[in-house]
Amino acid sequence: MAILRKRADVQVTVWPEDRTCERDWLLSNIAGADGVIVLFTDKINAELLERAGPQLKVVSTMSVGYDHVSLGELYKRKVRLGYTPDVLTDAVADLSVMLALMAGRNGGAGITLVKDGQWPEFAPFFMCGPQLSSSSLAPTRTAGFLGFGRIAQATLKRVAAFGVTHCIYSGNPSSPPDTALEVHLAEDHRLQSVRRVDLDVLARESDVLFVLAPGGEKTYHVIDEKFLRKMRRHSVLVNTARGTLVDSDALAMALREEWIWGAGLDVVEGEPNVGAGHPLVKEPRCVIVPHIGSATWETRVDMATLAAKNLLAGLSAESMPAELDLASRV
Amino acid sequence: MAILRKRADVQVTVWPEDRTCERDWLLSNIAGADGVIVLFTDKINAELLERAGPQLKVVSTMSVGYDHVSLGELYKRKVRLGYTPDVLTDAVADLSVMLALMAGRNGGAGITLVKDGQWPEFAPFFMCGPQLSSSSLAPTRTAGFLGFGRIAQATLKRVAAFGVTHCIYSGNPSSPPDTALEVHLAEDHRLQSVRRVDLDVLARESDVLFVLAPGGEKTYHVIDEKFLRKMRRHSVLVNTARGTLVDSDALAMALREEWIWGAGLDVVEGEPNVGAGHPLVKEPRCVIVPHIGSATWETRVDMATLAAKNLLAGLSAESMPAELDLASRV
Repeated sequence: MAILRKRADVQVTVWPEDRTCERDWLLSNIAGADGVIVLFTDKINAELLERAGPQLKVVSTMSVGYDHVSLGELYKRKVRLGYTPDVLTDAVADLSVMLALMAGRNGGAGITLVKDGQWPEFAPFFMCGPQLSSSSLAPTRTAGFLGFGRIAQATLKRVAAFGVTHCIYSGNPSSPPDTALEVHLAEDHRLQSVRRVDLDVLARESDVLFVLAPGGEKTYHVIDEKFLRKMRRHSVLVNTARGTLVDSDALAMALREEWIWGAGLDVVEGEPNVGAGHPLVKEPRCVIVPHIGSATWETRVDMATLAAKNLLAGLSAESMPAELDLASRV
Repeated sequence: MAILRKRADVQVTVWPEDRTCERDWLLSNIAGADGVIVLFTDKINAELLERAGPQLKVVSTMSVGYDHVSLGELYKRKVRLGYTPDVLTDAVADLSVMLALMAGRNGGAGITLVKDGQWPEFAPFFMCGPQLSSSSLAPTRTAGFLGFGRIAQATLKRVAAFGVTHCIYSGNPSSPPDTALEVHLAEDHRLQSVRRVDLDVLARESDVLFVLAPGGEKTYHVIDEKFLRKMRRHSVLVNTARGTLVDSDALAMALREEWIWGAGLDVVEGEPNVGAGHPLVKEPRCVIVPHIGSATWETRVDMATLAAKNLLAGLSAESMPAELDLASRV
């Protein structure tokens, strides 16, 4: 904010509360704006762009995802889009590993037992779960990635240090395989293999599966009942991308009927309208945190700074630090 | 168990329930035994050894710690002690990283909000915590270790992949510094430095501090009010060793008064008698799981197998796979 305030040539209007901006406020205050900084909770569609008016030059979203933005509507109005990739990569990768461990190791149930004053007596196999690290009994461990961009690769780096030995991933079908990248990652992280696979193999071979693909129509419910039924009984599913990628009812069934071991979710379809009675909230082996993937002081400051710089560059018709190439996406 | 059952020359008596063995049962059934497998919850003292009788050759504990065993009492009776180091290293290191992340990232509070149906609206700095990974705003991160044995080094390997840049540790004062090890670890994990330091520096410089030293009298309450007051406001304390190392009241005060950011505990002094009203259980930034450090299927099978092999070797007066050298410890 300081970056914007010190620019005498920029007049700033700020939603005054530390919570999601109300739609009505945004719609009335955007009229006449040359640029706007938004969050992933603000829907950027024709309605909003009409209200803004034809002088609008730039939308700067403080998020790496842009499934809340109608790219075609921006493109046809020649409004540029800034976003915040890279700066949140490490924070989301950290959280992805945290959720994989929590889901595998009965972390949610353990915390609840202690909070309820029910610290269990020690017993040799009580509260056991599958181990993320490889071991003498399970000398190989395969991490699967649905989506294999920056965050997925940063997560792979971390789980490799835990003793994961193999990596499989499924990327954008339209982009060609990158053998050089696979060789580089395998060498750098001392993995036995890094392979691009189809969804069938991804489901069947992952001991832990990280969902890290963009949201939107193309990936809607890609993790569905059919996919989940193919997974291993001791596998763990982690979603730190967007809730829409996973069919919540199918996942709840998979947990209840033990098709898989556990799940760790930072996102759930329909959030923040996820009540205590939601089928996933009620599953004891489903650990859910409320979309805090990028919620570290360091990362959010970086995201806000980048969003401000994108905005200012867009207002001055300069090159943005991080602009989405709309022409290639619509 | 199968390893023991198939030995026709060994008569096996087993506590029949999947919970901690009752003391009275153990005292009456150990009479006349040549060897016994125990857990860390069974106190091995003069009383028990007297009841067993002079024919007792071996105690085999299914644990890496042996603070529940009176080493002097074993030594003077020439009873050998088997334990289970190494096999649980990875499982405990995994859990240590999980707790560091949970404590830093408000994981406990996040889970509670979702369970209570209170998924919060998104706001730029809501639910933020300190980041384990280094970042542009905090380009260095220091992991501290109180105790620097196998589990600590396995934990270091993991956090290095998260972008931790420096390692400081405090080891057994009687053992000499190992410069070759420090150089090796720094190179292997691409760290800027690995240094042995005193407790004062350990408290002042750790962004995340892992307590991984043995329990017992020598380390009783080594993390006390004085230590905690020196720590950084954004630091996180993780204890996956023994509850006795940390003064619970001092830690609760440190959390309440924000001397440190958060804590992740697998062990609490007095466990399993840790009620819902325990001062640490009530602290929102204290994430506690009920001593599940080694609780993975893979590790517990390995531990049980090693404990059985130690027992059989001890009965036959052969060399054990993992025997504690009592002469050097008493």
